[in-house]
Amino acid sequence: MIQAKSFAAFAADKPLAPFSFERRAPRPDDVAIEILYCGVCHSDLHFARNDWGMSQYPVVPGHEIVGRVTGVGEKVSRFKAGDLVGVGCMVDSCRSCAACNDGVEQYCLEGFTMTYGGPDRVDGTLTQGGYSDSIVVSEHFVLKMPDGIDLASAAPILCAGITTYSPLKHYGVKSGHKLGVIGMGGLGHMGVKLAKALGAEVTVFTRSNAKVEEAKRNGADHVVVSSDPAQMDAVAASFDFMLDTVPVQHDLNPYLNALKYDGTHILVGLLEPIEPAIEAFNLVFKRRVVAGSLIGGIAETQELLDLCAEQGITCDVEMLDINDINQGFERMEKGDVRYRFVIDMATLKGDAA
Amino acid sequence: MIQAKSFAAFAADKPLAPFSFERRAPRPDDVAIEILYCGVCHSDLHFARNDWGMSQYPVVPGHEIVGRVTGVGEKVSRFKAGDLVGVGCMVDSCRSCAACNDGVEQYCLEGFTMTYGGPDRVDGTLTQGGYSDSIVVSEHFVLKMPDGIDLASAAPILCAGITTYSPLKHYGVKSGHKLGVIGMGGLGHMGVKLAKALGAEVTVFTRSNAKVEEAKRNGADHVVVSSDPAQMDAVAASFDFMLDTVPVQHDLNPYLNALKYDGTHILVGLLEPIEPAIEAFNLVFKRRVVAGSLIGGIAETQELLDLCAEQGITCDVEMLDINDINQGFERMEKGDVRYRFVIDMATLKGDAA
Ligand SMILES: [Zn+2]
Ligand SMILES: [Zn+2]
Ligand SMILES: [Zn+2]
Ligand SMILES: [Zn+2]
Repeated sequence: MIQAKSFAAFAADKPLAPFSFERRAPRPDDVAIEILYCGVCHSDLHFARNDWGMSQYPVVPGHEIVGRVTGVGEKVSRFKAGDLVGVGCMVDSCRSCAACNDGVEQYCLEGFTMTYGGPDRVDGTLTQGGYSDSIVVSEHFVLKMPDGIDLASAAPILCAGITTYSPLKHYGVKSGHKLGVIGMGGLGHMGVKLAKALGAEVTVFTRSNAKVEEAKRNGADHVVVSSDPAQMDAVAASFDFMLDTVPVQHDLNPYLNALKYDGTHILVGLLEPIEPAIEAFNLVFKRRVVAGSLIGGIAETQELLDLCAEQGITCDVEMLDINDINQGFERMEKGDVRYRFVIDMATLKGDAA
Repeated sequence: MIQAKSFAAFAADKPLAPFSFERRAPRPDDVAIEILYCGVCHSDLHFARNDWGMSQYPVVPGHEIVGRVTGVGEKVSRFKAGDLVGVGCMVDSCRSCAACNDGVEQYCLEGFTMTYGGPDRVDGTLTQGGYSDSIVVSEHFVLKMPDGIDLASAAPILCAGITTYSPLKHYGVKSGHKLGVIGMGGLGHMGVKLAKALGAEVTVFTRSNAKVEEAKRNGADHVVVSSDPAQMDAVAASFDFMLDTVPVQHDLNPYLNALKYDGTHILVGLLEPIEPAIEAFNLVFKRRVVAGSLIGGIAETQELLDLCAEQGITCDVEMLDINDINQGFERMEKGDVRYRFVIDMATLKGDAA
């Protein structure tokens, strides 16, 4: 067993607080990891507060994990102590279904194992995430951090990055395509960078004039203020894709209207009922598509890390002391972060009694 | 000019009645056609009653037209007097945009010219449809009726047939695919036949036990009674495609749940707001897609006619005397037709004063 320190949620209405627990001793295919950095995702907050009605407590959030290998099981072939590695949103899947065989473990027919808050497939214990000084994960679900990548700012690639990259790759976004990014948070700002890296012409849609300059600084070729009907009319039928990162209910119809025929509206942030209602004629009359996409597969995540290292693509992060995690949650809720908090896990060690 | 006899709608709340008007003299690229048969589509009824708020009166409905060429303009090269031909939902488009160049004139960036109720691109007069003894149409929008095809039962191929065939082709439906057809009317019964012709395993979804045998007679491999939760649960995550022909609001979520990951739900009947709301998680967690599709292109319609002739695929029709068109509309509204009325235009000639 490995004694682990962490911050955990103990109840939906309580702040996160220190929590000590035991990580399993590495199984033959396991990699034991000392965690250096962990990104703070909106899902962490939703899970801590039981917004999805599935939380069991105590739960240690965190699924944008970067660390260093401290030991490996006897059957592990791809990693050794000292390697720099990452762990994202999944730590296991059935590994034998059509989806797993296709490299899209996130759609595993048996359901993938969440990095925190899900039952381990071997012993049934609840998985615990990355707001911790260590984690033990099967090597198939461990990513190699490429040489030269900035470790702290790479952490959010493991969720925010892959969530936007996977649909861009799946739908073949490339040079010559016009793509809109709706929303300018953790997901949106990575969407802009990655769509640009793939060669697309990128327009950010923002509700307020205040974010126009910021969007351009982040690499957007164009910015449309979506609350201005004249600006929305001016872009009617002009986009191949919309990457919709907005996590709260909003009207899709004005964005559908901005798609060309055969255009695709990709939802990566919304999990609620789609209201106001989609007008079916907006789909039928132009053969448009509304699609969803969830994180990405393991091989694809490795591909993305390698691409980011190669092209120097990083997530814009603000470092966070783990002792300030509750204030971090509050600021994230208000949209007061550009664009992702990343916990420096040294601050957890400093807290040692 | 060609003197035309027809039945027209004169107001939203009036029955169709006889109407005489002039068809244009053929332009250099025009084909003049004596109409032999015309299918009766739900759109005809909606347009006659101004359900879409765009009708101008008098309007002659009908866009499933089969006839014989009576004369051609000097530049027409593909047709001559005596040829058996068809005209579907479109009689013109801009012919130079990306969509027209791609052979999907139904998505013409300038808007296609409807067979009835739209302004002619040359002289601005209102187009008039197929409940008539003649029509004059540019040769690009005239289809060849292949040798051996049954003319009367081929008429609905020009709208009901192509509306279901086009998305099946676009999405590459083929042997090995499992496809659900929702709704068993004019569109649905053609969807079953054409999906079978393309090699798919076809399941009909019907709300009532009463239609199970009928669906099997129509070629369905399986039938699911959608009002039975146990039957719906049994087919969860098992379909590659849903072809949704239902023209009124209905809950898409139970059908989305029946799609595999990467499955596609194709709307061809609905033009209203999608309510109840689509649950975004039904899309996101399985990378599912909701798509729309509108009729089909001219080349694709020709391909379909040729396929139907080759494989002996016909629409199940009930012949209608044009003098009974108002009763036909009433029965169609009640779903009391298996599956399409086709007007025998000889009954219009018999009505000559
Ligand atoms: Zn996340
Ligand atoms: Zn699996
Ligand atoms: Zn029609
Ligand atoms: Zn065009």
